[in-house]
Amino acid sequence: MNDSVSANRVYNFSAGPCTLPLEVLVEAQAEFVDYQGSGMSLIEMSHRGKHFVAVHEEAKTLAKRVFRCPDEFEVLFLQGGATLQFAMVPMNLLGEGRRAGYVNSGSWAKGAITDAQCHGEIYTAWDGKDSGYTRMPTSDEIEIRDDTRYLHITSNETIGGIRYGEWPQVPVPLVADLSSEYMARPIPWERFDLVYGGVQKNLGPAGLAVVFIRKAIVEGLNKNIARYLRYDIHVDKDSMFNTPPVFAVYMLGKVLKWMEARGGIDAMEQAAARKAGLLYGAIDASDGYYRCPVEAASRSHMNVVFRLPSEALEAKFLDEAGKARFLNLKGHRSVGGLRASIYNAMPEQGVAELADFMASFRAANPT
Amino acid sequence: MNDSVSANRVYNFSAGPCTLPLEVLVEAQAEFVDYQGSGMSLIEMSHRGKHFVAVHEEAKTLAKRVFRCPDEFEVLFLQGGATLQFAMVPMNLLGEGRRAGYVNSGSWAKGAITDAQCHGEIYTAWDGKDSGYTRMPTSDEIEIRDDTRYLHITSNETIGGIRYGEWPQVPVPLVADLSSEYMARPIPWERFDLVYGGVQKNLGPAGLAVVFIRKAIVEGLNKNIARYLRYDIHVDKDSMFNTPPVFAVYMLGKVLKWMEARGGIDAMEQAAARKAGLLYGAIDASDGYYRCPVEAASRSHMNVVFRLPSEALEAKFLDEAGKARFLNLKGHRSVGGLRASIYNAMPEQGVAELADFMASFRAANPT
Repeated sequence: MNDSVSANRVYNFSAGPCTLPLEVLVEAQAEFVDYQGSGMSLIEMSHRGKHFVAVHEEAKTLAKRVFRCPDEFEVLFLQGGATLQFAMVPMNLLGEGRRAGYVNSGSWAKGAITDAQCHGEIYTAWDGKDSGYTRMPTSDEIEIRDDTRYLHITSNETIGGIRYGEWPQVPVPLVADLSSEYMARPIPWERFDLVYGGVQKNLGPAGLAVVFIRKAIVEGLNKNIARYLRYDIHVDKDSMFNTPPVFAVYMLGKVLKWMEARGGIDAMEQAAARKAGLLYGAIDASDGYYRCPVEAASRSHMNVVFRLPSEALEAKFLDEAGKARFLNLKGHRSVGGLRASIYNAMPEQGVAELADFMASFRAANPT
Repeated sequence: MNDSVSANRVYNFSAGPCTLPLEVLVEAQAEFVDYQGSGMSLIEMSHRGKHFVAVHEEAKTLAKRVFRCPDEFEVLFLQGGATLQFAMVPMNLLGEGRRAGYVNSGSWAKGAITDAQCHGEIYTAWDGKDSGYTRMPTSDEIEIRDDTRYLHITSNETIGGIRYGEWPQVPVPLVADLSSEYMARPIPWERFDLVYGGVQKNLGPAGLAVVFIRKAIVEGLNKNIARYLRYDIHVDKDSMFNTPPVFAVYMLGKVLKWMEARGGIDAMEQAAARKAGLLYGAIDASDGYYRCPVEAASRSHMNVVFRLPSEALEAKFLDEAGKARFLNLKGHRSVGGLRASIYNAMPEQGVAELADFMASFRAANPT
């Protein structure tokens, strides 16, 4: 790897799109113009040609293997992000006389609810409003009504910085938006009918959504909608119903290979716990200087949100962090404060250095 | 530019994804890992950060300028390809008591019709079936019924190799799928309410659809559908409602800049006419050895389809063309034969060499 590239590299704590493994970027760059001596770039190739078909198949195989997804599921590569899935899930799964429960855990859950309301009968199975969206519900807090087809959850709220410490155990199948902790922890597949998420956090560049769908439900899905919106079509056509987002699928495959070479999903989960532990540790050891509004059991391992004693100190922190090459630490504009997103590709070294920076900043800026 | 890259470059006649300007690929490669000295790749950056916002704004401005799009239109960058537009157009534009006419000109038009039927009342305004989809209709052949909201056309059929020599003149607004000749010729904007297309032919890598929508119709669109499917939301949020396909937008901007530096859309149209002329000339001068099934006035300037005297000769042609580094000339699997796709980025030199190859092949393989 080119030394000047490594030397100029920053620690990018963006919530997404976000940092990717440097090794993957360097490899993709090297083969960008002339892919495997073919005389053309991969992005110039027919998606039905042998080169891309191999890339596509490998990415599918890796996605299932890295996520330890059982054979009962199909993996689909789609476009439109998790946001289009907010529409597709109810359009496909909800028919006459069936409804779905939605956990309202914050900004992303609200989006899913807003969209689902247009395409099916849904109800709020738990609402985090009273607790200020600072925690996820326990299983016994979630209301499941009769004729419920599925319960929709948002496994990690990127803006609120909360996640399910324990996956819900309810008497209906789960459907989950996993976007901001996709393949950063294993999931209990037997509880799910469908999971989805954009890849632009843990897994690749923006422009690709990955859906895992239980094969047994495909035949019974709604067929009276346009073909791009139908999961059964995408299953039947192996995600090649129309031209797939070639470059994003290719990058996903490379990131998955990188993950596998580093121990796979268990290693990612453990690293995430260590990285999150460094930052929550710095917060908890600060005598209230840094405050995380999230209840301990729901603290995200991907998006660590925290406040400083004043907005003036938050601005100063951001400014000095930027000069120290810790970038994109500003909290979402809807909630303010700070947020460190520490997805799979964020090196532990970067998080350790940020924790040190937090301690130094506190020492230099007492209240 | 690296000499070995140029030396190994092939002529890629793929129908899409397809050849892109080599200069653009080389430039993108150079800045791929460390974008403008920022210490990160563009694909790692927040889509709301200054770098990508600048890329996004420039691509929008260029798209409107290169296509000579008047201020009465908004440009949108979406995902899901032209195929998702098959659904979004009727979902947004057709309400109670309104219907739409669709010209059935071949494979892609049929797709648009299939999907629109699920989301609105539509009728076939002209059907190319009787003429074997070898020509487009004239304006007076197109039936427009009462209460027609729009007429949908497919400006170029990639598989059949036909295009509208003259744009239809009808008493209702046009909606057009321009995918396979997007920005390869100017359009009479005053006749259109909306045009759309994937960029993976003339304009960039797969994973991005560009929509131009007349501003005056936005307020009256259907609002009772999920937000990703609503044009008014994307207009309101400037195509940043959710995470856009960053890399594809970036590449689109580079290709548009390349087009503008080479004279813009008029130069592209003229080059396309010259390139198509070389191949149709080779066909017409072959005493029936090469046959193009398309009627002269409807011959595509983007996808030149032709047959040889036998399937055995077609196979031999493909084989020898491949050895001579003319790649991806096989016709679509649904129709057979050969097809040379000669989009904006295909050099005239490549088409001239293919025309010469056709003459030599004919001389060497008489019937």
